[in-house]
Amino acid sequence: MRALGESARAGAAALAAAPRALKDAALAAAAAAIRSSAAQILAANAQDLVVARARGLGASLLDRLLLDAGRVEAMARGLEEIAALPDPVGAVIADWTRPNGLRIQRVRVPLGVIGIIYESRPNVTADAGGLCLKSGNAVILRPGSESVHSSAAIHACLERGLAAAGLPAACIQRVPTTDRDAVRHLLAEMADYIDVIVPRGGRGLIERVQREARVPVIGHLDGNCHVYVDRDADLAMATAIAINAKLRRTGVCGSAETLLVDAGAPRGHLAALLGALLDAGCAVRGDAACQAADARVTPATELDWSTEYLDRIIAARVVDGVDAAIRHIGSYGSAHTESIVTGNTATAERFLAGVDSAIVLHNASTQFADGGEFGMGAEIGISTDRFHARGPVGVEQLTSYKYVVRGAGQIRPG
Amino acid sequence: MRALGESARAGAAALAAAPRALKDAALAAAAAAIRSSAAQILAANAQDLVVARARGLGASLLDRLLLDAGRVEAMARGLEEIAALPDPVGAVIADWTRPNGLRIQRVRVPLGVIGIIYESRPNVTADAGGLCLKSGNAVILRPGSESVHSSAAIHACLERGLAAAGLPAACIQRVPTTDRDAVRHLLAEMADYIDVIVPRGGRGLIERVQREARVPVIGHLDGNCHVYVDRDADLAMATAIAINAKLRRTGVCGSAETLLVDAGAPRGHLAALLGALLDAGCAVRGDAACQAADARVTPATELDWSTEYLDRIIAARVVDGVDAAIRHIGSYGSAHTESIVTGNTATAERFLAGVDSAIVLHNASTQFADGGEFGMGAEIGISTDRFHARGPVGVEQLTSYKYVVRGAGQIRPG
Repeated sequence: MRALGESARAGAAALAAAPRALKDAALAAAAAAIRSSAAQILAANAQDLVVARARGLGASLLDRLLLDAGRVEAMARGLEEIAALPDPVGAVIADWTRPNGLRIQRVRVPLGVIGIIYESRPNVTADAGGLCLKSGNAVILRPGSESVHSSAAIHACLERGLAAAGLPAACIQRVPTTDRDAVRHLLAEMADYIDVIVPRGGRGLIERVQREARVPVIGHLDGNCHVYVDRDADLAMATAIAINAKLRRTGVCGSAETLLVDAGAPRGHLAALLGALLDAGCAVRGDAACQAADARVTPATELDWSTEYLDRIIAARVVDGVDAAIRHIGSYGSAHTESIVTGNTATAERFLAGVDSAIVLHNASTQFADGGEFGMGAEIGISTDRFHARGPVGVEQLTSYKYVVRGAGQIRPG
Repeated sequence: MRALGESARAGAAALAAAPRALKDAALAAAAAAIRSSAAQILAANAQDLVVARARGLGASLLDRLLLDAGRVEAMARGLEEIAALPDPVGAVIADWTRPNGLRIQRVRVPLGVIGIIYESRPNVTADAGGLCLKSGNAVILRPGSESVHSSAAIHACLERGLAAAGLPAACIQRVPTTDRDAVRHLLAEMADYIDVIVPRGGRGLIERVQREARVPVIGHLDGNCHVYVDRDADLAMATAIAINAKLRRTGVCGSAETLLVDAGAPRGHLAALLGALLDAGCAVRGDAACQAADARVTPATELDWSTEYLDRIIAARVVDGVDAAIRHIGSYGSAHTESIVTGNTATAERFLAGVDSAIVLHNASTQFADGGEFGMGAEIGISTDRFHARGPVGVEQLTSYKYVVRGAGQIRPG
């Protein structure tokens, strides 16, 4: 593991100095290698699936693990999209001149070496490898044991991309063992070699990483997202947003988990909203007012307000106006993504300022919580941390900066 | 301690929503309270000094602990200068509109609750309290036991400032015990109440905090800063910069600790540089070439290249051009602040790009490593981390951001 860390440091130094063209060439060659190795990747994935079924993995885990021709092509295209993004490294993000003539620039630089610990989805190998490469960071990938063959096959394509561009293989390394101890080493003993850890997976993995890591972590825990329908909402817009926020995809972190409806909303709005969700096949667990509005609503318990269902279930509650909605979200939310639907600009601004979440929206679906939808390109996840990166973590969020100061012989008086 | 944490959370919520005028009024009132309480602050400081002398604290620690009328006035003026800074909270740091009409803004928000653990200098109470207040963060201050009376007296003035502005006292709290266990509690058990820890003090304190903290840390370790004098340097400029970088103040983290001189520099430059430092009363520990250039130079050992003297001592070495200088700094430096003196722009750019430090300068003294000199106002230190904040940590660096998205009913397709 130490040797891995030392070569990652060397890879990081090479990559920090690599011009954009070299990094983009590596990404393009890796995409081509993935396309031309599709058969091998799918064969490796079939091996993983045999083991996973024998271990009795559930259907949703099996689905995450499964690759098919479309998913392989999506990985290749993802790398090409990352290549098309602007290079964050070297970008001047602030530039000013002091009265003494010193010109100060804040310039983006890579973070250094990034450790990625992930579960199930083998495509993270390509996504995370590509994002780290573009942002000039060396990466040490630690895929879950369930995707060991798939991840190795994909990693081999990334290595071919690096080789084609003349970049060292140490830029994208993979922990060669599925030993659980490897994670402990990465978290605790590799602090000299790793600048930041990004965990991707279930709550158990992320909590373990946050507990044990001796280096900074970019983590994202629950997405317990809310849609608040205000008294001044347009009912058709509110219904469309609630349905989309909950049901477009229920397994993503930006899907809505609780619907809050203003007690001051016009008579019939509550029943119409709940009816639309129920008619669309969503179970609703509501408070007394919601149960009274539609007989199909089942009772919500206290636990429902803080549950991330990731399923066709939504909690629903009537609240006394925007301030009560802000308080409910403050008490039960996970500071991920929340939306207000209202025609009243003052109410909207109150919500946008008062809700302390990574993403707050007015009159739009919570399912826009996505780096691609934000125009940031691919992302490594949505951070619910307040430190360093918050919200979608794309190539810019995988950088640090330094100050470059140009003078003409200035010395400091005093 | 839990009660302290819970009230800090409430203070943070109040402060996050506080308009600039309220925060600035609290800062102005605190400055006035410090001026009118100067006698009490100095009396409390005298108590601390009696205890410190009895404990046998060294002269430099006693000097850091000592307050006088000038230092008290400087604290008051520091708070007024913080009040004059722009409010970082609410600043829109990015603003774009997507093809679907969604308008996305990245808006600065406070980090939340900041824990500051510091040693000796009682003025940190005012500086850190003021910076956190301005940046909308609640703060829990944990002064060292040696400054317990001084810090309590200064903290009382900050509380009077908060009260005058109608802000809760919980915005700036002080751990009421000097029990060493209190630090452990802050670091490990208060993770739910503290968003980031800032340690200020010696290496021992900072390493302990980095080791034990269960929340993010903004730390700054050594400032082992370098001046590299290139073959194309103007000798007069190089001499002035070397003298200033080393000797203007030797106890600050931006003072130079190693002088690197290009082997290709014109004959006589090395001797002139070393002679100027020696004549100014600086001891020089050098390699064989430096010893040959001036008989007063004593031999440097390997340890000297990585030592932060914070004293009238400098290490000196002849290196083979800019690339060797970059390699020396990469091996021995602490990634704080380094300067190149050269008239050759290409060489300068090579150094500025190749040296991976928080601050890299061309033709200017390393002693400009300071938030005030950067025009950022007061600072809480110079971060040598790569994560979140790097370089001077001022009010902007004590913030996070959130995304505010304004739509017209957009739902996400697909």
